[in-house]
Amino acid sequence: MSEPATRQAGAVTKKLMFFAGDVHPELAEAVATRLGTQVTPQTAHSFANGERFVRFGRSVRGCDAFVLHAPAPPLNTWLMDQLIMLDALKRASAKRITAVLPFYPYSRQDKKHRGREPISARLVADLLTTAGADRIITIDLHTPQTEGFFGGPVDHLRAQPLLAADLLRHHQDREIAIVAPDSARVRLAETWSVLLGSRPIAFIQRRAALDPAYPAPAQLIGDVAGRLCVIVDDMIDTGTTTAGATRLLLDAGASDVVAVATHGVLSGDAPARLAASGIREVTVTDSLPITEAQRFPQLRVRSVAPLLADAIHEVFTDGSVTSLFSRPASGG
Amino acid sequence: MSEPATRQAGAVTKKLMFFAGDVHPELAEAVATRLGTQVTPQTAHSFANGERFVRFGRSVRGCDAFVLHAPAPPLNTWLMDQLIMLDALKRASAKRITAVLPFYPYSRQDKKHRGREPISARLVADLLTTAGADRIITIDLHTPQTEGFFGGPVDHLRAQPLLAADLLRHHQDREIAIVAPDSARVRLAETWSVLLGSRPIAFIQRRAALDPAYPAPAQLIGDVAGRLCVIVDDMIDTGTTTAGATRLLLDAGASDVVAVATHGVLSGDAPARLAASGIREVTVTDSLPITEAQRFPQLRVRSVAPLLADAIHEVFTDGSVTSLFSRPASGG
Amino acid sequence: MSEPATRQAGAVTKKLMFFAGDVHPELAEAVATRLGTQVTPQTAHSFANGERFVRFGRSVRGCDAFVLHAPAPPLNTWLMDQLIMLDALKRASAKRITAVLPFYPYSRQDKKHRGREPISARLVADLLTTAGADRIITIDLHTPQTEGFFGGPVDHLRAQPLLAADLLRHHQDREIAIVAPDSARVRLAETWSVLLGSRPIAFIQRRAALDPAYPAPAQLIGDVAGRLCVIVDDMIDTGTTTAGATRLLLDAGASDVVAVATHGVLSGDAPARLAASGIREVTVTDSLPITEAQRFPQLRVRSVAPLLADAIHEVFTDGSVTSLFSRPASGG
Amino acid sequence: MSEPATRQAGAVTKKLMFFAGDVHPELAEAVATRLGTQVTPQTAHSFANGERFVRFGRSVRGCDAFVLHAPAPPLNTWLMDQLIMLDALKRASAKRITAVLPFYPYSRQDKKHRGREPISARLVADLLTTAGADRIITIDLHTPQTEGFFGGPVDHLRAQPLLAADLLRHHQDREIAIVAPDSARVRLAETWSVLLGSRPIAFIQRRAALDPAYPAPAQLIGDVAGRLCVIVDDMIDTGTTTAGATRLLLDAGASDVVAVATHGVLSGDAPARLAASGIREVTVTDSLPITEAQRFPQLRVRSVAPLLADAIHEVFTDGSVTSLFSRPASGG
Amino acid sequence: MSEPATRQAGAVTKKLMFFAGDVHPELAEAVATRLGTQVTPQTAHSFANGERFVRFGRSVRGCDAFVLHAPAPPLNTWLMDQLIMLDALKRASAKRITAVLPFYPYSRQDKKHRGREPISARLVADLLTTAGADRIITIDLHTPQTEGFFGGPVDHLRAQPLLAADLLRHHQDREIAIVAPDSARVRLAETWSVLLGSRPIAFIQRRAALDPAYPAPAQLIGDVAGRLCVIVDDMIDTGTTTAGATRLLLDAGASDVVAVATHGVLSGDAPARLAASGIREVTVTDSLPITEAQRFPQLRVRSVAPLLADAIHEVFTDGSVTSLFSRPASGG
Amino acid sequence: MSEPATRQAGAVTKKLMFFAGDVHPELAEAVATRLGTQVTPQTAHSFANGERFVRFGRSVRGCDAFVLHAPAPPLNTWLMDQLIMLDALKRASAKRITAVLPFYPYSRQDKKHRGREPISARLVADLLTTAGADRIITIDLHTPQTEGFFGGPVDHLRAQPLLAADLLRHHQDREIAIVAPDSARVRLAETWSVLLGSRPIAFIQRRAALDPAYPAPAQLIGDVAGRLCVIVDDMIDTGTTTAGATRLLLDAGASDVVAVATHGVLSGDAPARLAASGIREVTVTDSLPITEAQRFPQLRVRSVAPLLADAIHEVFTDGSVTSLFSRPASGG
Repeated sequence: MSEPATRQAGAVTKKLMFFAGDVHPELAEAVATRLGTQVTPQTAHSFANGERFVRFGRSVRGCDAFVLHAPAPPLNTWLMDQLIMLDALKRASAKRITAVLPFYPYSRQDKKHRGREPISARLVADLLTTAGADRIITIDLHTPQTEGFFGGPVDHLRAQPLLAADLLRHHQDREIAIVAPDSARVRLAETWSVLLGSRPIAFIQRRAALDPAYPAPAQLIGDVAGRLCVIVDDMIDTGTTTAGATRLLLDAGASDVVAVATHGVLSGDAPARLAASGIREVTVTDSLPITEAQRFPQLRVRSVAPLLADAIHEVFTDGSVTSLFSRPASGG
Repeated sequence: MSEPATRQAGAVTKKLMFFAGDVHPELAEAVATRLGTQVTPQTAHSFANGERFVRFGRSVRGCDAFVLHAPAPPLNTWLMDQLIMLDALKRASAKRITAVLPFYPYSRQDKKHRGREPISARLVADLLTTAGADRIITIDLHTPQTEGFFGGPVDHLRAQPLLAADLLRHHQDREIAIVAPDSARVRLAETWSVLLGSRPIAFIQRRAALDPAYPAPAQLIGDVAGRLCVIVDDMIDTGTTTAGATRLLLDAGASDVVAVATHGVLSGDAPARLAASGIREVTVTDSLPITEAQRFPQLRVRSVAPLLADAIHEVFTDGSVTSLFSRPASGG
Repeated sequence: MSEPATRQAGAVTKKLMFFAGDVHPELAEAVATRLGTQVTPQTAHSFANGERFVRFGRSVRGCDAFVLHAPAPPLNTWLMDQLIMLDALKRASAKRITAVLPFYPYSRQDKKHRGREPISARLVADLLTTAGADRIITIDLHTPQTEGFFGGPVDHLRAQPLLAADLLRHHQDREIAIVAPDSARVRLAETWSVLLGSRPIAFIQRRAALDPAYPAPAQLIGDVAGRLCVIVDDMIDTGTTTAGATRLLLDAGASDVVAVATHGVLSGDAPARLAASGIREVTVTDSLPITEAQRFPQLRVRSVAPLLADAIHEVFTDGSVTSLFSRPASGG
Repeated sequence: MSEPATRQAGAVTKKLMFFAGDVHPELAEAVATRLGTQVTPQTAHSFANGERFVRFGRSVRGCDAFVLHAPAPPLNTWLMDQLIMLDALKRASAKRITAVLPFYPYSRQDKKHRGREPISARLVADLLTTAGADRIITIDLHTPQTEGFFGGPVDHLRAQPLLAADLLRHHQDREIAIVAPDSARVRLAETWSVLLGSRPIAFIQRRAALDPAYPAPAQLIGDVAGRLCVIVDDMIDTGTTTAGATRLLLDAGASDVVAVATHGVLSGDAPARLAASGIREVTVTDSLPITEAQRFPQLRVRSVAPLLADAIHEVFTDGSVTSLFSRPASGG
Repeated sequence: MSEPATRQAGAVTKKLMFFAGDVHPELAEAVATRLGTQVTPQTAHSFANGERFVRFGRSVRGCDAFVLHAPAPPLNTWLMDQLIMLDALKRASAKRITAVLPFYPYSRQDKKHRGREPISARLVADLLTTAGADRIITIDLHTPQTEGFFGGPVDHLRAQPLLAADLLRHHQDREIAIVAPDSARVRLAETWSVLLGSRPIAFIQRRAALDPAYPAPAQLIGDVAGRLCVIVDDMIDTGTTTAGATRLLLDAGASDVVAVATHGVLSGDAPARLAASGIREVTVTDSLPITEAQRFPQLRVRSVAPLLADAIHEVFTDGSVTSLFSRPASGG
Repeated sequence: MSEPATRQAGAVTKKLMFFAGDVHPELAEAVATRLGTQVTPQTAHSFANGERFVRFGRSVRGCDAFVLHAPAPPLNTWLMDQLIMLDALKRASAKRITAVLPFYPYSRQDKKHRGREPISARLVADLLTTAGADRIITIDLHTPQTEGFFGGPVDHLRAQPLLAADLLRHHQDREIAIVAPDSARVRLAETWSVLLGSRPIAFIQRRAALDPAYPAPAQLIGDVAGRLCVIVDDMIDTGTTTAGATRLLLDAGASDVVAVATHGVLSGDAPARLAASGIREVTVTDSLPITEAQRFPQLRVRSVAPLLADAIHEVFTDGSVTSLFSRPASGG
């Protein structure tokens, strides 16, 4: 502090700092590279009893912090890890803190099906706020209403245009039908219909899901004979729904079945189940890490790293994230 | 205060007080009667410039207050009126305050369709909290996720079982098909399918709604020929959707068309439009007031007063609201 | 994003964006012009049932937003409209949001006259905060304590110096007496006395206003014979008070009567009542829109646009709003 | 805990506990006696460096706590003492906490006179909330708007009816004029005029108070010749205003002058100043302690203990505080 | 609702409901039994990707809820499970919610050792509040200041008196020295010295812990020769500290070494390490579950179930928890 | 505002403004000088009844405000003064507000010793937040956990390295022993041991402090014969502890005794007590003002002004405060 007297006023500068938990290093590196920066070095570990700890290796004072986590298993550990990182940033005087959640945890628990249930997706929003998040960046929420669970700004990115462009490149000459694997996804199917240039829609009615007293079989509504059926969903978890839909569609005369979903959760036996289901291909993004054990022959993975990096860049430079979706899908 | 010395301890008693804005006196009276109480007298008026004012005619100190409003036009005035009543109750030491909203205003603005839009349904939840509401009672939200917009307890009542029981009594021998008037209502149609005993579903795909560049006509997915079509929705506002669906269904060979919705908003030309649409009947509840001008020959109205009164009773006595929905629908 | 690597740090820039509801376009345009900017284009409308909607036509990310509303009738609609605009700005990442309220709605409901009443002026402050307002700019509050209802910064502008300068130019050679039309305005009359160069004060005592059991007539305290009486108030609403005071003053020998108030609410029959009252002129500002129907021969309107524009400019550039009032009143 | 199995449900009971700082033991004792209870024993002291400490001598779990403080000098110490007591009650599981402030500290700092000033009366409300106060009981606020500074319920008691009844008993045959000692108290004078049965009003205009550039002398507006002048105010602090008004009124021909105010702050030389002012009597309440040094021959003190005790009783029993003011003034 | 008219007022009753996560069923059962109640039945499970879910089997409306969790590994999962249970209780209208944490997770992360670290113990307090906890019951916090991290009431129970009584019964004729295993525990050792009847203290200085540049060996301060050394701590995690202290004490001539700690975390190799350390016995409580794999010959476990049950009983009945510690330790 | 059109966008500039209460002008001046700025002029005074008032003499809009207070007696007055200054800054639109508390008031009340006590150190953190503090700078907290009482960033500066460097310069050739005057300071003694290059530690056990039933005398644990004993503490208040320890150490054969503490509270008879205690020197900082009456022959005072100024500079320029402690202690 050689000449303090000259420093009582000056221009405010801003500095982007990018942070990431250890859960998905490939995605973190890819985002950082496209942003032209590095993941900020940190010391992070679990104590013997499972408590997480983190300390950043550089001063974060005044920075515009973006904190990437992809809550793969053990999901609650990584969620707590992100909350702790947010707390540390807040206490270390980061100027603005954005939680980047390519996959929003607990997104399916967005309503009470019956009384005395939690609304865990709202709880997650509140926990993020409490820990220090000023804003959120996420991709393809299970329901768009979830954005309203957070009190502050949410940049809700869409990977579907990217996946749709990929599908069109890959199957451009086929007669396509869009299939909603259950009633709650019909609205999504309609979105895909438009993305792919006005395609017909079908959906699968599942009475048993609603009332165990009526164990009627799932039933296909709409015509798919001779068509390439595209099963659309926001995530594929156990693969049961997708595999069941595939069988039903093939039985109904579909010429081929593919599935497209943003989030490849792929829990438990999902890889084996899908591999054996008769499906031709399953396309997901790398919003969650895909381990070797989760891969299977029909799986294709497209990266959301460019999407995340571009959004972070727009947020940092006060540009327009909305405009990201009115230009041609940006590769993969 | 003749013998204060004897009053330093005692049993806590509770007192239910029921309040209502002036917007829907019939519903307020019906609820009060079934509860065995009266609407608490109040002085309420608008000042010359439109500012609302209210003063309660009795002490409300320590009461368990239930404040009913049904935001018919002028909707924003009644919403503000409810906020002001909540503020007055809070400042006058009501012990607990429940906002009773048979129709939740701004319920359709529950997500951002594009950037730079509000999420007004969340805003309404926050305004109610700010004004003093500890809890909410509402009926058949446009999307169930809206419940998560409120931080405290929400008793989300269902009028659909009541309407379903009414429909079955009325059309018990007909072959019924449930019709979702657009893709976002297919999940609702599936619920109705179960309520009515496992009926087939159809839905109407509206490409134009999604992308004006593809002005393809609405298209019916599913088979309705020879069936009594029941168009299901949470509300009927301008009637355009219902009237259009009616024509499409009749063209597709439906034997008859009826519409059932919880909330009869019936704005503008809706009565004339529906009257001339070829529909056989339109059933709604009295969650909103139905004026003389809004009535038309095919309109049938069922009351939610018993549902609201029973729920208020359960809340007041710490009973179970969930259990209300596991017993036979309670008349109308 | 051609060269992201070069953008990880940089100077923070700021951008003023000016927003306005549709209620008072003349004032919005005048403020924008003086600021050298435009009203930000937006899509705004009411749905059929009265719910308001807004979407901004340009990215607002990172901007310093000023949102002008002038709550004329239907007042609650415009208040809700402003809350919705604030919510949309917050969710779209505006950096700082200032609600500009030339007329503060519900400003007269700033205390409880008796038990079980709301304090709606405090409620409005809380609603603005909840919706997203970081700060408020307003003009000539009904009581200055209202500033304390808001938790954050309030720039409380004064139009009275401007109106006083106008009055002095207009009536510079007259013997002036300042008249408070009721006891609550005597403090205001004293302020005017100083603004006009130490003039005598009179006021009208209204016993009936306090206790209907004592219907004594209003009574003038102070001497006004032969003087130009200036009735001062913060607003003129129904005109009853002003017209009644005019008669009383003329009866007491006033040579002439004029009224000056910041806010021309002019509800209902106010124009006709004032036109027929014997008053010589009534001067208000354009803090609220003055419709054709509200105009009458004696009405003079001075604009607060320069005052608002200068304050917005000072706020945006971190200048001093206080200093605005220590320089000569800035035209009209 | 001999038979816990029988205790899983039961009636909720309530228990009033009354707490008081050491500042005004006479008032605390009088309130406790009328309530039929005692001041809860506590250990309270200052540490060597002035930090306050308190510990309650009995379990307060689940109680309805009323915490009386009367912020006499050293005012900030007693204010902090009250905040600490509130914190201790909150952490010790009191069920409801009411701060009882017969005199609201910083009540005169209720607005910004110029820029860059605090609004300390609002700050005090926020500090009380932060420390744990759920509600406030206070008497005759400097301005009634201050009630709106607190977010929760405020029971704003009025000692003026009690003082008015006392005055009428004492001077029942006199021709009375009510005098506002400055323009801001004219509204109060009007209230007194009604309380005393429609009496004439006068007030004193103080130009110098507003603008030091116009050092014009104070001036009496209204006629007081031959009358008993009652100077009304919410508090008497240094006595300068009251003494000055007395001289002005006697000069103007008043037959006699008395002053009535709720709060006897009586700082510094006030006793001597008032004793020598020519005033006949000065009546205040014991909302603040009156030390021996503060007494002077003309001083009369009436107690607010019954008023406070009755209000606490009504709050505890969920009665009506509003009704306290519609019955005959309750002694003194 | 047969006779609603008779139910508008009545006595308020209260109902204790006891909830517990699946992590430590033995403790939950023992507490419930002593309370004379049962653990409320619930459906709880993990989804395939690790998200937790819970639904209560009975109405919880209006209950006084106590939610026991003992965060053993996987610690973050159980912490999230508790947060979700709190959220579900809040949304299902529990009247009051107490989080019962026999072991407070992240209690050691109660300060920043260096810059850019989180304060996770404060974060946990905030997360509990956000999820819905009104109050906390916990046992023997790592530092008592942690109580201040929570904004509401904390009942901080002490198991140390219970453990001290046990130790005295077990070793009543021995010459005892209390040993703090590091400098931060000396205050705890002093507490134990008093609990055991004024015994001498020693402590172990660990320079290396503070500064790796000074790898000086740990050093014993105080005299222990010929004594039974009691190493006291709040928790035993990896056992490294306890085992190292044991060796040091035996080398220094201690006749025997025992360790007493409230929380038996016993992570990783702790059982083997302690078994081989030369220690005579290790006494902990069952605040955390002790698995078969964690047991070793010298381990003794005392139950905190009576302590927790008594505290819950006092809280529910508005009794005094403080008084629990002034009576003879209640068994074990 | 000659050319407003050119001002709708621009670089954001920042401006440091330094504020200080009147309590410790020497420290304020020293900090300001080193920062190359001045203390912002303000009007501050007490009203007759003790209420504090402040008004800033310059516009503070948009500034980065640092508000220094050193709560010497009357401590509560200065604490309230700081809260009022924070409120005024918040309302006057300061951009960021840092409360600078060289001595944190109520820091010793950081836990409940028994039930029904406040946690006043947490209360102070909450009051600062409520009044407007975004962040805190403080020095050598009584316990480091206190940092977690504040929800936002705390820059917890350490004066101990500075005092240690001073001690080493002053006594470089002596055999030093570090002495904790009670069990709670042993951790601090260990820190000092490392700062001074690995010195032996002793501490004084005080049984009476814990349990009046065991009035055993204080007892020294550890060996100090022939050594220069350095009694370390965070503050010296009444001097009783330090004086008592001095006697005990001299009795135990210490060659000399000095005391070092950050905060020289020096209440009441402390100067005389310490002067007569046999201690050789007592070194404190000027974190609190040292009056003439508080000085005594053995007292040495080192200044924290450079430490505070450097920290303010780093905070203002978004530098690293952590790095301040990894470089050689900066003078004194």
